[in-house]
Amino acid sequence: MKTDIEIAQACTMLPITQVAEELGVSQEILEPYGRYKAKLDPAALSALPRKGRLILVTAINPTPAGEGKTTTSVGLADALHRLGKKAVLALREPSLGPVFGIKGGAAGGGYAQVVPMEDINLHFTGDFHAIGAANNLLSAMLDNHIQQGNALDIDVRKITWKRCVDMNDRQLRNIVCGLGGKVNGVPREDGFDITVASEVMAVLCLATGLKDLKGRLGRMVVAYTRDDRPVTAHDLKADGAMTALLKDAIKPNLVQTLEHTPALIHGGPFANIAHGCNSITATDAALRLGDYTVTEAGFGADLGAEKFLDIKCRYGGLTPSAVVVVATVRALKHHGGAAKNELGTENLSALEKGLPNLLQHVENITQVYGLPCVVAINRFPTDTEAELALVEEKCKALGVNVALSEVWAKGGEGGEALAREVMRLCETPADFRFCYDTDSSIEEKLDAIARKIYRADGVDLTSNARKQLKQLTSLGYDKLPICMAKTQYSFSDDAALLGAPRGFRITVRNLKVAAGAGFLVALTGDIMTMPGLPKVPAAENIDVDENGKITGLF
Amino acid sequence: MKTDIEIAQACTMLPITQVAEELGVSQEILEPYGRYKAKLDPAALSALPRKGRLILVTAINPTPAGEGKTTTSVGLADALHRLGKKAVLALREPSLGPVFGIKGGAAGGGYAQVVPMEDINLHFTGDFHAIGAANNLLSAMLDNHIQQGNALDIDVRKITWKRCVDMNDRQLRNIVCGLGGKVNGVPREDGFDITVASEVMAVLCLATGLKDLKGRLGRMVVAYTRDDRPVTAHDLKADGAMTALLKDAIKPNLVQTLEHTPALIHGGPFANIAHGCNSITATDAALRLGDYTVTEAGFGADLGAEKFLDIKCRYGGLTPSAVVVVATVRALKHHGGAAKNELGTENLSALEKGLPNLLQHVENITQVYGLPCVVAINRFPTDTEAELALVEEKCKALGVNVALSEVWAKGGEGGEALAREVMRLCETPADFRFCYDTDSSIEEKLDAIARKIYRADGVDLTSNARKQLKQLTSLGYDKLPICMAKTQYSFSDDAALLGAPRGFRITVRNLKVAAGAGFLVALTGDIMTMPGLPKVPAAENIDVDENGKITGLF
Repeated sequence: MKTDIEIAQACTMLPITQVAEELGVSQEILEPYGRYKAKLDPAALSALPRKGRLILVTAINPTPAGEGKTTTSVGLADALHRLGKKAVLALREPSLGPVFGIKGGAAGGGYAQVVPMEDINLHFTGDFHAIGAANNLLSAMLDNHIQQGNALDIDVRKITWKRCVDMNDRQLRNIVCGLGGKVNGVPREDGFDITVASEVMAVLCLATGLKDLKGRLGRMVVAYTRDDRPVTAHDLKADGAMTALLKDAIKPNLVQTLEHTPALIHGGPFANIAHGCNSITATDAALRLGDYTVTEAGFGADLGAEKFLDIKCRYGGLTPSAVVVVATVRALKHHGGAAKNELGTENLSALEKGLPNLLQHVENITQVYGLPCVVAINRFPTDTEAELALVEEKCKALGVNVALSEVWAKGGEGGEALAREVMRLCETPADFRFCYDTDSSIEEKLDAIARKIYRADGVDLTSNARKQLKQLTSLGYDKLPICMAKTQYSFSDDAALLGAPRGFRITVRNLKVAAGAGFLVALTGDIMTMPGLPKVPAAENIDVDENGKITGLF
Repeated sequence: MKTDIEIAQACTMLPITQVAEELGVSQEILEPYGRYKAKLDPAALSALPRKGRLILVTAINPTPAGEGKTTTSVGLADALHRLGKKAVLALREPSLGPVFGIKGGAAGGGYAQVVPMEDINLHFTGDFHAIGAANNLLSAMLDNHIQQGNALDIDVRKITWKRCVDMNDRQLRNIVCGLGGKVNGVPREDGFDITVASEVMAVLCLATGLKDLKGRLGRMVVAYTRDDRPVTAHDLKADGAMTALLKDAIKPNLVQTLEHTPALIHGGPFANIAHGCNSITATDAALRLGDYTVTEAGFGADLGAEKFLDIKCRYGGLTPSAVVVVATVRALKHHGGAAKNELGTENLSALEKGLPNLLQHVENITQVYGLPCVVAINRFPTDTEAELALVEEKCKALGVNVALSEVWAKGGEGGEALAREVMRLCETPADFRFCYDTDSSIEEKLDAIARKIYRADGVDLTSNARKQLKQLTSLGYDKLPICMAKTQYSFSDDAALLGAPRGFRITVRNLKVAAGAGFLVALTGDIMTMPGLPKVPAAENIDVDENGKITGLF
């Protein structure tokens, strides 16, 4: 069996100028980066109407291996393309951290991939480096402000802004910086996040243009004064230079799938402390250029789709036409109680017991958000015919749309059934509504997500979170949407509660404002914002030969 | 008077494809980055002969403002271009640190600039970010190795590898990392350098291709074991992944001057702890594509030209045809004892007293290295006719070639006299030789540089340096060329000793190996490898409007 990189390297890509031309993108607004990547100027597209249908690909609560949202998205777009439709993908960019760590790259899999896979997984067009530079310029200006007299009266114990690096580097999680005496800064505690966890990443992904970007960057809170007033990037006069650093990074990147379907790969914020979707500029461009835009959101639908719909769609003025919930037989058996090492063995009883997890996600999409929904069963080689038949039969019995997806093995051809169902759903009437009103109080918004999406009995705030809620409300940050930071493995905040749990409550331990991104982050536990490398990092196996051919990426 | 960025933005650039075509670069080996930047594949050029003449632009010992080497290089290339010659520039890339700090960008000045000035000064084609990522991947793998059991027995007190960021950030000079308990790494002292000070930068600039690059990266020493054996990047299995991260960064970047002369801008190592020249791949490509290659080296000729000739030319197999020593009336008066605030006032006596600094540099080039040399007087608005006449007269009386350069004010037209003189020199016989033999001992090499170039009475090593010399010799690193880290303001190691001092000795306080770059660094004092931001960073004035137009860069 061929590896992903072998399949990708065997693909004869079209010149990106040709991909652009077929998409109707004129050469004037195309900025090539090498022969197979390009940036588009989103401002130049704004005259076109947003004519495309928006299709969100989300998933059930995943197993640690993931259920193949990106692969399904790529295959669905390829299938629409095969069926003669003008389809455009809008996906997230991968981070270097996981590429060198344990997870590997993120450009789809099997015969449903975006290419050039190596470039996309390495530096791509430099967006993440630009975000890192903007983040770290702000850090340097913040500490320099303190060193040069601290006119803003920043309390060094209340600095909330961290430095970042696009690397899995646990050694930088907690540091003391500014050591070495007077000329070398002011000693204080600090830490690094991985670049994708930077608020700059979330800001870039939610900004609708350069002016909005600069406004959002300027509003970011980096610290508090000794008397607890917020200090922003604008107070430090960093917003102009940061915007200059990001002027190209805000432009969506155009690449292609193995089957030459155009793909806009742009931005990649964390799906816990941030909203986990590609950029609004890329989704917007796709809607103006194609008839069908296929996009995805991180983790399961309780986190990913919820944030996509309540945060990204709200800020971007987006209305999806259909939602695809990806499920695998393996994950359903996992939710039904099958052991991790037995997920490859036929187990109809566990499978049936796991279905409520899937059904709750579908119900949330259709009943809470009022959107048409289809379940895509992402076929794995270990799935048996009986298992596949059981899922299909149970879904149909409950009136749930379902389609088998075999895109990993067959590319677009394996996604035609799903594509046809999606096209049909796009023509059915929808009544899109948000899960909550931003005008409600913070408690009311938390409560709406917990009761309506998670089916919890309510939300508890720790005394710490209650204090933060009071402070954030008094500072006027209470009318922002909520970004939940919660385990992706369960509807609840307990990773071990599988299936469709009932009779539980959600505990919010921390509330923070991301004033630039424009949301409040509600943390239900400790979230790791800087991963570590495993015992044998993937980096050890990556190599490049004299001709520049890369091996060992996966 | 127009600012540099105003002049640059008023330029109507040619499409980079056209610049490439006029240079004879086929579209197959051109990888455009936007419309006005491109990378060239150096491997594809290796079939062409190295037919071009190599012209090095260096300078007298500078004032803190610099004497205009880049501006003179750009203007000289434009002048050759105007005279109908196929000229190619080969220059260094600017670092983000100084752009946001106090010094500003580095793309020439006035009417002798490379463009697009904003892109070149910001991320350009991402080379420096790639170098930073490779550097920091090695750091993460090093600390992960220790965390996961430390099979190589690395002594955490003897780690020599630092992390890096392309930013002026004094707060990161000295840190303690790995805090927060067992899962968060191993506590130890650490620090960040600015990216241009990373050995990866020097390696990239001295590598002749991907294979050489990987070999050099693998040889880099990152730490010592408890029993003092060196640990390399290859021991940590990081060299393959680092090379993969650098596979595009090693390709030279093509841009143009205001007058559309092709310019390869690539690499930019520090000129003290490293060799301070653009990449060998860029210089090599320029020599294969043009008839005249104009390149420069950092600081004054005692540091820049010495390292260019003894390190870069040695590793690159390069032989210059002529050397330009840039001098300014201001700097000559400074060497002659004029006060800093009076450099703009006519002072013929100080000017004459300062000439020996210039003459010693010229003599070094002609007598030590056996190369033809011309002095370029980089004209400033404050220079008087009498001053300019005096320099010219004194040079001519001593048989020193001299030409007035007015490229800052007039572009290529102002460099024609210099260009004619350079072309003439390129036809005179040369007898290029190095200052020292690498086979000599470390002491002998240090002594050769100190006596022949600086005219010191000899070299003293501190007891610390003597111990290091012994260790490096026993490890077999003694046959490498020497990279002197010394003040750029004087021939001596005392910045206050101006002119052409005699009767002094050089003190080497530290000796380190850069085994990947392939040189020994001899430090004569404390060298700052992480700058800080000033009271009002340049970043505060940088902005970008809704159309992406940048202001405030200088």
